[in-house]
Amino acid sequence: MKHLAILGSTGSIGRNALEVVRNLNKNDYPVKVQYLSAYSNTKLLLEQINEFSPKAVVVFNKSSFEELKKELSRPECELLHGNDGLIELVRRGDYDLMVNALVGFTGLIPTIEALRAGKDIALANKESLVVAGELINNILHSSGSHLFPIDSEHSAILQCLRGETAKSISKLILTASGGPFLNHDKEFFGDITIEEALNHPNWKMGKKITIDSATLMNKGFEIIEGKWLFNIDVEKIEVLIHPQSIVHSMVEFSDGSVKAQLGMPDMKLPIQYAVTYPDRIASDFPKLDLSKLKSLTFFAPDLDKFECLKLAYEVIRLGGSYPVVLNASNEVAVDLFLKKKIKFPGIPYLIRKALEKHDNSAGADLNKIIEIDKWSRDFVRNNAGQTC
Amino acid sequence: MKHLAILGSTGSIGRNALEVVRNLNKNDYPVKVQYLSAYSNTKLLLEQINEFSPKAVVVFNKSSFEELKKELSRPECELLHGNDGLIELVRRGDYDLMVNALVGFTGLIPTIEALRAGKDIALANKESLVVAGELINNILHSSGSHLFPIDSEHSAILQCLRGETAKSISKLILTASGGPFLNHDKEFFGDITIEEALNHPNWKMGKKITIDSATLMNKGFEIIEGKWLFNIDVEKIEVLIHPQSIVHSMVEFSDGSVKAQLGMPDMKLPIQYAVTYPDRIASDFPKLDLSKLKSLTFFAPDLDKFECLKLAYEVIRLGGSYPVVLNASNEVAVDLFLKKKIKFPGIPYLIRKALEKHDNSAGADLNKIIEIDKWSRDFVRNNAGQTC
Repeated sequence: MKHLAILGSTGSIGRNALEVVRNLNKNDYPVKVQYLSAYSNTKLLLEQINEFSPKAVVVFNKSSFEELKKELSRPECELLHGNDGLIELVRRGDYDLMVNALVGFTGLIPTIEALRAGKDIALANKESLVVAGELINNILHSSGSHLFPIDSEHSAILQCLRGETAKSISKLILTASGGPFLNHDKEFFGDITIEEALNHPNWKMGKKITIDSATLMNKGFEIIEGKWLFNIDVEKIEVLIHPQSIVHSMVEFSDGSVKAQLGMPDMKLPIQYAVTYPDRIASDFPKLDLSKLKSLTFFAPDLDKFECLKLAYEVIRLGGSYPVVLNASNEVAVDLFLKKKIKFPGIPYLIRKALEKHDNSAGADLNKIIEIDKWSRDFVRNNAGQTC
Repeated sequence: MKHLAILGSTGSIGRNALEVVRNLNKNDYPVKVQYLSAYSNTKLLLEQINEFSPKAVVVFNKSSFEELKKELSRPECELLHGNDGLIELVRRGDYDLMVNALVGFTGLIPTIEALRAGKDIALANKESLVVAGELINNILHSSGSHLFPIDSEHSAILQCLRGETAKSISKLILTASGGPFLNHDKEFFGDITIEEALNHPNWKMGKKITIDSATLMNKGFEIIEGKWLFNIDVEKIEVLIHPQSIVHSMVEFSDGSVKAQLGMPDMKLPIQYAVTYPDRIASDFPKLDLSKLKSLTFFAPDLDKFECLKLAYEVIRLGGSYPVVLNASNEVAVDLFLKKKIKFPGIPYLIRKALEKHDNSAGADLNKIIEIDKWSRDFVRNNAGQTC
């Protein structure tokens, strides 16, 4: 019986993770949901509590917490509040695997605490690795915990690397759908609406990652994530646009052979793989039938058009604490765009400004990371007016 | 230092195998060519002897053997003749791996003798497995030898299966280019010339396998080969037309994930993989650049048009000794087509006739296999006149 703590259970990844739990229990792979956490969706959280009977749940938002407190009629389910409540649960350690589906920088501390408690993590929160990859790898090294990626790209790479040796890797090829603006003229990027930016052609995801996919910043984060997950030079990580999102990523080996992992665009498969690794468990998730697809296409990304990806490449070259600025400034800029405070091109504009202002430092100190994160957020908020 | 015996060294696979030897020696993976065999191309064989200094070589054709005897001025290279000479060398066993690139049924006995001598085999001669898969697996089981496939499809599957468990395999998906007549109307199959049939769109191979690729019999053989190599039910082996020959084959796993191996259509990669397995050694073989390809397409095969593949499916269902008849009648029919004795549609016609005449028997007795092979050849030769 594997005990799970699912952080962010009412979001897109969280809901898919619970679908995976249902599938596993149906297929004789017993899984118990020990903990759940949500930001404010108490209605859905209550349904999840009723179905999965967790030992405890955490609600972040204060008024939502108070609301759930009134409605929850199960004394056997403990109710905690906010970040402190979450950290307390994470530290208890009476679970085997944490599914971290929190959004943005918030996901970092639970990742670190779970790894320090010797727990394995199925990580959808790639921002953890973007801002603190070195620190996390240091903890992994000493704790003996494991980190399994929950995104289709790195899950694909993990699958392609099964049974292969590290020295035989020649390069990782991250595929990218290209998002909704792949064929838009950059000239009109200023007119992009929130609705257009949230209308991803292949994937139904949360808002933050959907905007990151529209700017291609998501792919920049994935390069950094890949570096830390697979301990590989970023020069050996390539991005290839593949609009159909069927080939989830590839590995080229030293002999020239390329391996790819394919599947329908559906997060349940990579989530389940992270939960059951190294086992593969039967599923009734949507199956790929290549004979039903028209064709698979591939081409190089346009860095002049997608400035966020270009910025990510620059940050990768600079290293140090620049990824912290990249992540924090992007997080605030995306939020400002979603609140209609800035236009779409304002996102890379503000990130570039923040990066230009930043003085680089080494990247493995948590307090320093928190400090730089805060500085970057303040900087972008204070300069948002400049972009209009 | 790995010692190789390369059977069929002047053919397409043999020449590529020697390219692989050159590459490996250049990349600090020392390989020594111990034995070579050829049918009649003494000019090329002499060049190979001068470059690779084998201990001994075999020439099949009597007059070619006599010719080489006169020309060979290296007393340290022993010269043997015919099948008896080949079997003698194979039995000596002072080599580590036999590359069996013989064409057709001729390849069977050397395969069996090498395995009995406890040697590993890199097998391009898929006919060995088609006619005697059960027998070969029995010998493998008792000898502890290994059999590595040298065709792009099964090499792809072997690569996709690295690190995976047998129970997690849901199906094997063999890709097929579809050959030169993929878009030809079946009505005009009677007008197909030898030159047209030998003009494969993607692969430069020997004549026999090129015709087998044009009829899709090659894919039928590969299903049977896959069954024995990977110990899997033929119902779990699918064929998918993929005209670009970039995805060399795929595996679908129980969770729904699909893994594929990709590369340029070039036999050096699967040959090297078979020789160095499980190691991957650097190469300057043509590298895949997906951004330079237009698109990858996939669709189901047309069994009404490609009767040889349909016959192969029937034979697979029937089992027993039917594959022996399928292989032998195909081998003779292809030879008759290449000699302009029958037309292209005569190939499946004669195979069907032979299959209809055959009384099934169990498939693991070598003498019985040889007897049925001979009967099938005689039957097709005697009935060739019927097809015109």
